[in-house]
Amino acid sequence: MMNAQQIVLANRPEGMPTKENFRAESITLPPLNQEEVLIKGLYFSVDPYMRGRMKDVESYAPPFPVNEPVYGNVVGEIIDSKSASFKEGDLVRGILPWATEAVAKAQSVVKIDASIADPSYFLGILGMPGLTAFFGLLYIGKPTPGETVVVSGAAGAVGIIAGQIAKLKDCRVVAIAGSDEKIEMLKEKFHFDEAINYKTIPDLNKAIKDACPKKVDIYFDNVGGKISDAVIVNINTHARIVLCGQISLYNATETPVGPRLEPLLVTKSALMQGFLVGDFKNKFSEGIQQLSQWIKAGALKYHETIIDGFDKLPEAFAGLFSGKNIGKMIVKA
Amino acid sequence: MMNAQQIVLANRPEGMPTKENFRAESITLPPLNQEEVLIKGLYFSVDPYMRGRMKDVESYAPPFPVNEPVYGNVVGEIIDSKSASFKEGDLVRGILPWATEAVAKAQSVVKIDASIADPSYFLGILGMPGLTAFFGLLYIGKPTPGETVVVSGAAGAVGIIAGQIAKLKDCRVVAIAGSDEKIEMLKEKFHFDEAINYKTIPDLNKAIKDACPKKVDIYFDNVGGKISDAVIVNINTHARIVLCGQISLYNATETPVGPRLEPLLVTKSALMQGFLVGDFKNKFSEGIQQLSQWIKAGALKYHETIIDGFDKLPEAFAGLFSGKNIGKMIVKA
Repeated sequence: MMNAQQIVLANRPEGMPTKENFRAESITLPPLNQEEVLIKGLYFSVDPYMRGRMKDVESYAPPFPVNEPVYGNVVGEIIDSKSASFKEGDLVRGILPWATEAVAKAQSVVKIDASIADPSYFLGILGMPGLTAFFGLLYIGKPTPGETVVVSGAAGAVGIIAGQIAKLKDCRVVAIAGSDEKIEMLKEKFHFDEAINYKTIPDLNKAIKDACPKKVDIYFDNVGGKISDAVIVNINTHARIVLCGQISLYNATETPVGPRLEPLLVTKSALMQGFLVGDFKNKFSEGIQQLSQWIKAGALKYHETIIDGFDKLPEAFAGLFSGKNIGKMIVKA
Repeated sequence: MMNAQQIVLANRPEGMPTKENFRAESITLPPLNQEEVLIKGLYFSVDPYMRGRMKDVESYAPPFPVNEPVYGNVVGEIIDSKSASFKEGDLVRGILPWATEAVAKAQSVVKIDASIADPSYFLGILGMPGLTAFFGLLYIGKPTPGETVVVSGAAGAVGIIAGQIAKLKDCRVVAIAGSDEKIEMLKEKFHFDEAINYKTIPDLNKAIKDACPKKVDIYFDNVGGKISDAVIVNINTHARIVLCGQISLYNATETPVGPRLEPLLVTKSALMQGFLVGDFKNKFSEGIQQLSQWIKAGALKYHETIIDGFDKLPEAFAGLFSGKNIGKMIVKA
């Protein structure tokens, strides 16, 4: 028997989430059954997609029940095991509750190899965000050398990888982000060809047009809304619009409206494809292998915003929607 | 030297086109040069896409110049030839001016084989509309047996073929059209599973939901706008939205707005793909062969609205946008 802290969804956010939507609780963990493990959470991932699960509507994943713990990607350490697959000290990753310690089925977690990269990287570049960027860009965007790729949310966990993979594929990469600090990082550390601060540029449409003299072949979209409007009006014939995320719309309380894109998609013979990383489940090992190889070779860099303290999870999550993170947002317990 | 009548674009339509946007003129044709032919127009195609070329904006095809003849698909008869490839009496098809007779380069027209089908069919089921339906449905929609396919503009030149090909692929086909006469034809003659009159149904969204108990796997869209809104809200995971036409929006004088679809496309991992039939140019012979085979086997039926009189071309064209045609709209000279 062990005591732990967990964070539950206290009520469903209306619009922007706040820390008042969550509540910390003390719980007593049950003893382990066979094929179960006890995990101490080390790194907790907060991701924009989790906002969708806080709504009471059917989606690709069931909604989080109110008064139950929030679940997300967690890297933790095995501190007790009734499974032959895991021993104390093993580092694992899985979809686990926001809890300081948790009991999980052994089959619900996978071991991570900290010799490849820091454990927290398995929540980012070597986790869901990395695979999302990899499959979205390569399998939907299908970049060819010399093409122009625009990435929105380019300083975010996924965008920062998508842009770098596009560079590795010899594309011109134009990044859009929301602070001068992010813009500087995207140019100086990640060497994107252009980086535009959408919050300070007077005319985003014109800025994109100027930055993309050969128009936009691939738009890797993490944000949606007015930023996307400005990009999409600049697409090329046979453009591919990779719909990865729509963070600007996740907190909308009414159905967002915008220009109808279909007539342009017809005249440009353009593709717009939504996807979830799970669509590529049977190719995950290919993605992990290639990403690991690029990391080891120094071809892919990464950036994290690590917030200290398990109890900061609600604030860190809410901060995603005001752009507080640079790169992957992670809470370290 | 021969006199002919031609119809020119007198001025660019604002909103709905009217016959006042066009003007008939008498012209004298020049004598034939080598590798030219003289063609008497028999059947003239009016197609929604031509509306786009009447605007003064860059698109996939250059705009029609004002005071110059409108060009469209025409089936005609060779009445004089300075090319070894054609002799008098040959039936041909090509993009030709709206003119009773016209001089054309021999290489700009192709012979048609009237033993396969009536000559006018080469403007419809065996022409651009047939190929559009064929490639859009099969190469973008990728129907599999048992899937639900919704076709908007289902009684139009393209929709009527797309729906039938979906039936040939063992799909459930739900048709949307705008008159009871069309609905009856779609059910009785074409045997679509359901047909909905969007003009009289009180709640289109609910009607589509009821008609698609397993949701919408493929949406073959010819119309756009509010009809599409009602369909798209009912899509399945991994749905394919084939953007063929957007006739409801072609006459818009301001950028049409509507619900932003991207968040739904993400959660449904759905594809939206615009296309032009020319994207499949190198596969045209495959399409023509398969369509001809289906016609000969009686597996594909067709319907035409034929309007008599060359001078009726402007009216016939304008009529497309008020849904006056059932099936392919054609003007017989």
